[in-house]
Amino acid sequence: MKATARAHTNIALIKYWGKRDEELILPTNNSLSLTLDGFYTTTTVEFRNDLTNDIFYLDNQCISGIPYQRVTQFLDLIRQLAGKHIFAEVRSTNHVPTAAGFASSASGFAALAAAGSKAIGLSLNDKALSRLTRRGSGSACRSIYGGFAEWQKGEKKDGSDSFAVPIKPQDYWDIRVAAVVLHADEKKVSSRVGMKRTVDTSPFFKGWVDSIPQDLEQIKAGISERDFEKVGSVAEANCLKMHATTLGANPPFTYWYDTTFTVMQHVQKLRDKKIPAYFTIDAGPNVKVLYLPENEADIKRELESIPGVRDVILSKAGQGITYL
Amino acid sequence: MKATARAHTNIALIKYWGKRDEELILPTNNSLSLTLDGFYTTTTVEFRNDLTNDIFYLDNQCISGIPYQRVTQFLDLIRQLAGKHIFAEVRSTNHVPTAAGFASSASGFAALAAAGSKAIGLSLNDKALSRLTRRGSGSACRSIYGGFAEWQKGEKKDGSDSFAVPIKPQDYWDIRVAAVVLHADEKKVSSRVGMKRTVDTSPFFKGWVDSIPQDLEQIKAGISERDFEKVGSVAEANCLKMHATTLGANPPFTYWYDTTFTVMQHVQKLRDKKIPAYFTIDAGPNVKVLYLPENEADIKRELESIPGVRDVILSKAGQGITYL
Repeated sequence: MKATARAHTNIALIKYWGKRDEELILPTNNSLSLTLDGFYTTTTVEFRNDLTNDIFYLDNQCISGIPYQRVTQFLDLIRQLAGKHIFAEVRSTNHVPTAAGFASSASGFAALAAAGSKAIGLSLNDKALSRLTRRGSGSACRSIYGGFAEWQKGEKKDGSDSFAVPIKPQDYWDIRVAAVVLHADEKKVSSRVGMKRTVDTSPFFKGWVDSIPQDLEQIKAGISERDFEKVGSVAEANCLKMHATTLGANPPFTYWYDTTFTVMQHVQKLRDKKIPAYFTIDAGPNVKVLYLPENEADIKRELESIPGVRDVILSKAGQGITYL
Repeated sequence: MKATARAHTNIALIKYWGKRDEELILPTNNSLSLTLDGFYTTTTVEFRNDLTNDIFYLDNQCISGIPYQRVTQFLDLIRQLAGKHIFAEVRSTNHVPTAAGFASSASGFAALAAAGSKAIGLSLNDKALSRLTRRGSGSACRSIYGGFAEWQKGEKKDGSDSFAVPIKPQDYWDIRVAAVVLHADEKKVSSRVGMKRTVDTSPFFKGWVDSIPQDLEQIKAGISERDFEKVGSVAEANCLKMHATTLGANPPFTYWYDTTFTVMQHVQKLRDKKIPAYFTIDAGPNVKVLYLPENEADIKRELESIPGVRDVILSKAGQGITYL
């Protein structure tokens, strides 16, 4: 009753922004992501009869408190699915540099779901695994797949039709992402709180949700045509819309710093110099820049030259769950 | 047939953003402004039988091209109202430092409307003068009045009910404004073009318009109660909403520079230090900061210390049209 799985984090190109059910983690819009090779979590789960409670090690540290509770509550879902009431030892290693500004929750819960469900003897297909993963962290449900994945929001109240699917064609397209690291400050407004305040108070939330189907249609056409400019420009516009909704919230807030804005301007200047590059930003100040392999040297040099940039970490597109 | 009038510029606290009629300059939402003492235009209009066309001097320079056309087309409206077909010599002096980032069109058209209508022998009341002024430049219609003024968008197709009215009480409240000057670059997207692109393509435009009545109600309560925090926070939130709509346009755009963002952050830091200050930003990169007289020294020092700030120009609240 032991299994090990690796999952990579993903970067949303069409953002997940707004929940219709906080408990079941059901979104108000479909989202679409690219899984990244450079950032991943490896997790081993062993269900053992001799344990009287779950144990969770992260990077060889024994964890308690809220992170422990999220893991043990997630294990409860796995136990429920399997109909087995047995505790587990979980050992996770994060290969997500904290400073990169990627949430490790996406790779973390995808790896936990995969290793945990296999260890307890469940045989989940990808959709079922994605649906389970969603309960740990919404955006994690997209990390089941390599390349591009779409989280279908679903319509049902119980969330049974809310899971991610891979975007065809699945043959490899070498799109790259530079994580531009600005600050390691604690977020002032968490993504959970910011999302909820936006849903509850922003006059722009309806416009955001209504605009998603067209963005998805265009970006999927771009992926299918291997049209980097189309994919990049839709992703950048979608990110700007997501962040615009927060400026309309009551009280208004933003995840951006002035240096975030500086990086955005530089990316637009790169395009003026005919170097295709597009930015996207999650619920935090750091910027991720999409680019093509042939421009890697130029992109890295330009981004590293920006005052206020602390680090630039490069990644290729990555693969889905692997069992080790 | 000669008259001279002075009009001051105004800063919108609830922004004019979106037209329902481009030709008649009819807005999609009510707006509210504070007239500023520091920035004004003085204009003399003389209708003369010996002229075979209009002549326009601005700051002692004879003007042709588009600025001339806007003036002569506006004089046509005055001639039409008066039923007199006679040309005029117009001499304007702008006391609006170009670098301050205030449009001189507001004070310019208000002074032209006042001097021109008086010179030709019309006796317009404030509402009629405001309605006429609107045809030259929308936001100019608020510069008829001192202190706070509200431009009522009106409902009629012919624009006859679209003009500004003063906000009572009209006794003086010493609110001040610091114009924080960043750049003198040409705007990439003009306010006219940006407004139209937003109306036509931004999924947030409806939310913007729908949110105005509540903003107006709150800011008018703040003015009536002399509650600076309420007035400032509503104005700041309204400005953020206006700029958020541009991020949703297709293609997206922004009037902000990174230094615009830096100034916004500093204003919020001033509040953390218990110095009440609120920003507002028009369709350009410069920031205007609302403050109270007792904080003037602190405000000026703090704003001048921000890297990238070129100048800080202070102004009190100003008066409406005066005839000289």
